[in-house]
Amino acid sequence: MKRLLTHARILTMKKGDSPVRDGYLLMNGDTIAQVGEGNPPSDWDEVTDMKGRLILPGFINTHGHAAMTLLRGYADDLPLQTWLEDKMWPIEGKFGPRQVKWGTSLAVIEMIRGGTTCFADMYDHMEEVARVVEETGIRASLCRGVIGLGNEAEREAKRRESVRFVRDWDGQADGRISAMMAPHAPYTCPPAYIEAIVADAAEANVPIHIHLSETRAEVEQNVKDYGLRPVEHLRRLGVFDRPALVAHAVHVTKEEIGILAEHGVKVSHNPGSNLKLGSGIAPVPTMLKRGLRPSLGTDSAASNNNLDMLEEIRLAALIHKGAHMDPEAVPAETALEMGTLYGAESLFWDHEIGTLEPGKKADLISLDLDGAHMQPPHDLLSHVVYAAGSADVQDVFVNGRPLMRNRELLTIDEERVKFEAKEAYREVAP
Amino acid sequence: MKRLLTHARILTMKKGDSPVRDGYLLMNGDTIAQVGEGNPPSDWDEVTDMKGRLILPGFINTHGHAAMTLLRGYADDLPLQTWLEDKMWPIEGKFGPRQVKWGTSLAVIEMIRGGTTCFADMYDHMEEVARVVEETGIRASLCRGVIGLGNEAEREAKRRESVRFVRDWDGQADGRISAMMAPHAPYTCPPAYIEAIVADAAEANVPIHIHLSETRAEVEQNVKDYGLRPVEHLRRLGVFDRPALVAHAVHVTKEEIGILAEHGVKVSHNPGSNLKLGSGIAPVPTMLKRGLRPSLGTDSAASNNNLDMLEEIRLAALIHKGAHMDPEAVPAETALEMGTLYGAESLFWDHEIGTLEPGKKADLISLDLDGAHMQPPHDLLSHVVYAAGSADVQDVFVNGRPLMRNRELLTIDEERVKFEAKEAYREVAP
Repeated sequence: MKRLLTHARILTMKKGDSPVRDGYLLMNGDTIAQVGEGNPPSDWDEVTDMKGRLILPGFINTHGHAAMTLLRGYADDLPLQTWLEDKMWPIEGKFGPRQVKWGTSLAVIEMIRGGTTCFADMYDHMEEVARVVEETGIRASLCRGVIGLGNEAEREAKRRESVRFVRDWDGQADGRISAMMAPHAPYTCPPAYIEAIVADAAEANVPIHIHLSETRAEVEQNVKDYGLRPVEHLRRLGVFDRPALVAHAVHVTKEEIGILAEHGVKVSHNPGSNLKLGSGIAPVPTMLKRGLRPSLGTDSAASNNNLDMLEEIRLAALIHKGAHMDPEAVPAETALEMGTLYGAESLFWDHEIGTLEPGKKADLISLDLDGAHMQPPHDLLSHVVYAAGSADVQDVFVNGRPLMRNRELLTIDEERVKFEAKEAYREVAP
Repeated sequence: MKRLLTHARILTMKKGDSPVRDGYLLMNGDTIAQVGEGNPPSDWDEVTDMKGRLILPGFINTHGHAAMTLLRGYADDLPLQTWLEDKMWPIEGKFGPRQVKWGTSLAVIEMIRGGTTCFADMYDHMEEVARVVEETGIRASLCRGVIGLGNEAEREAKRRESVRFVRDWDGQADGRISAMMAPHAPYTCPPAYIEAIVADAAEANVPIHIHLSETRAEVEQNVKDYGLRPVEHLRRLGVFDRPALVAHAVHVTKEEIGILAEHGVKVSHNPGSNLKLGSGIAPVPTMLKRGLRPSLGTDSAASNNNLDMLEEIRLAALIHKGAHMDPEAVPAETALEMGTLYGAESLFWDHEIGTLEPGKKADLISLDLDGAHMQPPHDLLSHVVYAAGSADVQDVFVNGRPLMRNRELLTIDEERVKFEAKEAYREVAP
């Protein structure tokens, strides 16, 4: 099936490409066949005139816990540890497959509607998440997040579950699912347990996804418990000898950023969640200077409280300028790269997604340029980063398949999901 | 005309009121007649079922330059002085009545669509702005911003123009227009000129609206030029002896906040613009502790780059938590008060707007609660502050008159405005 989009403005996000003013994009099956300006090709099965729309790569959300969307607004304005230990963990302890299925489905609807074509998810009952991904047509990097605070038997069961999940799902759903191993965090996993998971990841040949230095308190605790700050701690445990993605990295020193850069570690910057939980502001300008290419994550809707990647892109462009009193701290273009290409890199998927170029998978979105808030059309990249809203997203394609057209969802029953999500919450409500 | 809205959720924003789950609101002409829960009154001329919608006071944008919407995305990621002197002032120097008319019209469309029912505007050719306000039905606090850098004759002409504008327009458009006097800033107006304007304001009995301590550089310059930081400088010039609204107040010390509090000075906090221009992060938590009730402004779309008050409310709720590593720094409820009631107070209009209560003007909006990003409906105030988008705004009433219903604008021709705004920009484009 050859789908052709014509008369669009296009931002390919490929380094060096200029914005296309009157362009076309041809998909051949799941792949981008051509992107260009001027006369479109004549060999196609379906053509859509995209006048007044901007095509760009889908957003890539590199850290989250989709099922927790059931807990949006359940507890706000509390410090991370209180929020986690007194509010989240007690109710999450009651989550079963139904909560994960419907919470994740609700999240996927919100993500598609906001232009996210790929998300990373770290949670429990991951086969439910994988099935939602399989059915809805979105792309995801999935991992069973394991907290190693229980007894030996529990811990080993979780490890086996992680390994089994990777074996069963990595590469499935026409390649739209990839898998990682995920020791939850240095403060929730004993060192030997992390080492065992690193060995599992090496054997399964998958990357590692882990929380790192989200709060000052956990850094202090790490120093107290192990005599080391978390980055050096994880380095010694071999985590960075594997391809690794660390989420948050709010409290990292210049030296620690240097270690991450040396090991090619990927970072998921989660500005909305870090602000809301009062965790702090990650040193993103320093990361960029040291050659890291941090991507963006929403974290869960329980701490954000939405899954709006345009909002994270805007926060990434704004907050570091303000915090450092430097209007050039994170330029608009870098912020958009963080939400697209750097996201692909962070999920070790940039050979297939993150930019619009022939040979890559057709994961792309269109934005309506006609809204009053997008006028006058001086600089479209600036408008995407600083002015657009998620409701401007019109079309979403993943692997060449349309998941949303003109804001109509094509692969998921929104009304049913909203109903079931409310029911699923009610079953565990305190 | 009695308009009744039924079966709505309602946040009145009146201190002590609980959220209404199944409520009604009755407007009688331009005024709120009743707000309540349970059985609605039976005496009405028009009734609308608002099931699935949340009614709350319209947002109040307390600082901006609407006409500069023509310059959205015209220049980004530059420091304030460069941005102002090299980019904005040269093109603004070419602005005439047409640029102001169509730029402001574009801004008003965006503001209505985002739920703003009242805005403060400081610019030039203010009779054009007043006419747009008169015709579109929105509410506004307007002032001719005067820069006192020219020669004596120019300065005096601007003062006379300000006085004339106040005389002609204060209280006009069925009371929807109020006026202020606006010496632009301490760094653009000589002290004697500010004193003369203060005297004008006293004679006309209107408040003063002025930029204050937006950047560190202007504070340092003030100390160099006058031996005083800007707050003490303005205090000595008598600005705070009048009702006064200061915009930005980013670089103010605890002592300066104390002076502002003592004099009952109102503050417009502009988080988006302050971040984007790298000006810094205003000490809002300290202001709140000292009893100030800062409101929110978008500043212009040239430095924001939209006029989305939900975004400013969210930024106000988020950035201070992150900057101070305190998740309770600005609670969600306070952020929403900043965008509504504190806005009314900042424009000296809280006797008529800012909350939904009988006797106040019927300035109100409704938000759709049905979006996936608003599920599950645990805490609606939290959802408004942390999850909603401006596209969720469905209905907008000002003085009891509907300006938008179900996202359809009723008092302004959006297509014509978008066309004319592009033309008006083209006339001055470099």
